[in-house]
Amino acid sequence: MAQQERAIRTRHAILKAAASVFDERGYEAATIGEILTRAGVTKGALYFHFPSKQALAEGVLNAQFAEVSLAPRVCKLQELVDTGLLTADRMRRDPVVSAAARLSLGQEMRTLFGGQAVSLWIATTEKVLHEAKAQGELLPHVDPAASAWIVSAAWTGVQVYSHTLSDRADLVERVVSLFEHLLPSIAVPAVLSRLVVTPERADEIVREIEQRARDEAERAPESVQAFGLRTRVPADAE
Amino acid sequence: MAQQERAIRTRHAILKAAASVFDERGYEAATIGEILTRAGVTKGALYFHFPSKQALAEGVLNAQFAEVSLAPRVCKLQELVDTGLLTADRMRRDPVVSAAARLSLGQEMRTLFGGQAVSLWIATTEKVLHEAKAQGELLPHVDPAASAWIVSAAWTGVQVYSHTLSDRADLVERVVSLFEHLLPSIAVPAVLSRLVVTPERADEIVREIEQRARDEAERAPESVQAFGLRTRVPADAE
Repeated sequence: MAQQERAIRTRHAILKAAASVFDERGYEAATIGEILTRAGVTKGALYFHFPSKQALAEGVLNAQFAEVSLAPRVCKLQELVDTGLLTADRMRRDPVVSAAARLSLGQEMRTLFGGQAVSLWIATTEKVLHEAKAQGELLPHVDPAASAWIVSAAWTGVQVYSHTLSDRADLVERVVSLFEHLLPSIAVPAVLSRLVVTPERADEIVREIEQRARDEAERAPESVQAFGLRTRVPADAE
Repeated sequence: MAQQERAIRTRHAILKAAASVFDERGYEAATIGEILTRAGVTKGALYFHFPSKQALAEGVLNAQFAEVSLAPRVCKLQELVDTGLLTADRMRRDPVVSAAARLSLGQEMRTLFGGQAVSLWIATTEKVLHEAKAQGELLPHVDPAASAWIVSAAWTGVQVYSHTLSDRADLVERVVSLFEHLLPSIAVPAVLSRLVVTPERADEIVREIEQRARDEAERAPESVQAFGLRTRVPADAE
């Protein structure tokens, strides 16, 4: 295995292990020791990639965006829906996404991370809504910034309630219901009637990104991008 | 001062003190000692009213509903809006309501309280939406149970985001924006156009409940209801 590829795998293993520990125990109770054990890497390798527990948490927060990124859609409101559905699915299956939610929302996390993940979600949503507006998909009165804030916050509330009441078993269905409640006040009727907002749509998107992951695995060098690896990879970084 | 009235005041003081400690420190880090100091009551009085830290937290969770209860409105969707606006205002000013949010949403709280506060919010919202439906205020396709779930969850998400990003400075304005996004998919047009959903409405409601509190203070015995005091009040309960 090439040295660079080994470093990527190591970093990935550390992030997955850190995510599973943060997800189960929360930030305060998580220990580097348990993350090391689960990742099966040396202390030197871990500290090369992530010099502190806070750096590990930031790594998990940043990695969530790679886990839920989609190929661009022609209809930008469909892209918004698809991202919301995909994130709901990943939140149930991927500890990186689930741990990122826990790290973003903990009361103590505000002082450590200053709401940066929350701000990034709003910014990502706002970008899509601006594109939708430019394409004439939005009702005339819609302010992309204000609607991005509400859509992001409401999505998070749905996630919190679903987690609390059903351990996320109904998360995809509730996110579908949320979009059904929000989109009539955002989309022009011609777009609204064409949007696909169903639980089955979530399954299709999951198949799409799984196929993409298989395609990327066959072209290994490009997968470097997925985990934002630093350019410098010294010999002892594995 | 009558014995019963003293017991009510003591219970109230304990709840306020417990709420402020839970709000600042969270459930795990809160200590009975600090609650005693802030309440200025004896250990015996505290344990008479609340035999454990968990009982104190449950007391705070239950008390939040009394803090945001309104006189019934003729238009039930206006009652839903008014409750949402009043809760936003109280969340900023009343440690009982703010602490209840923290206690309801903490990840560790799920095992202790099993999402009971979250379920109560949904049930309260569902009751109002059923009444709205019976009065013909809802669009034909609206399912009160499904919409109550979404409205409650989305409201909570808005609270979490506003808390994270602005320490709740913009909470009332964001709740107004949330209702503007949700109501077009819930209310029939004739009702929608009559609903008052503005930040100024929040101020009016606050004046209404402050006036009611003054009226109730003049009729002391009835205020017993406000904190759900047990019937039995022994001599050493102060």
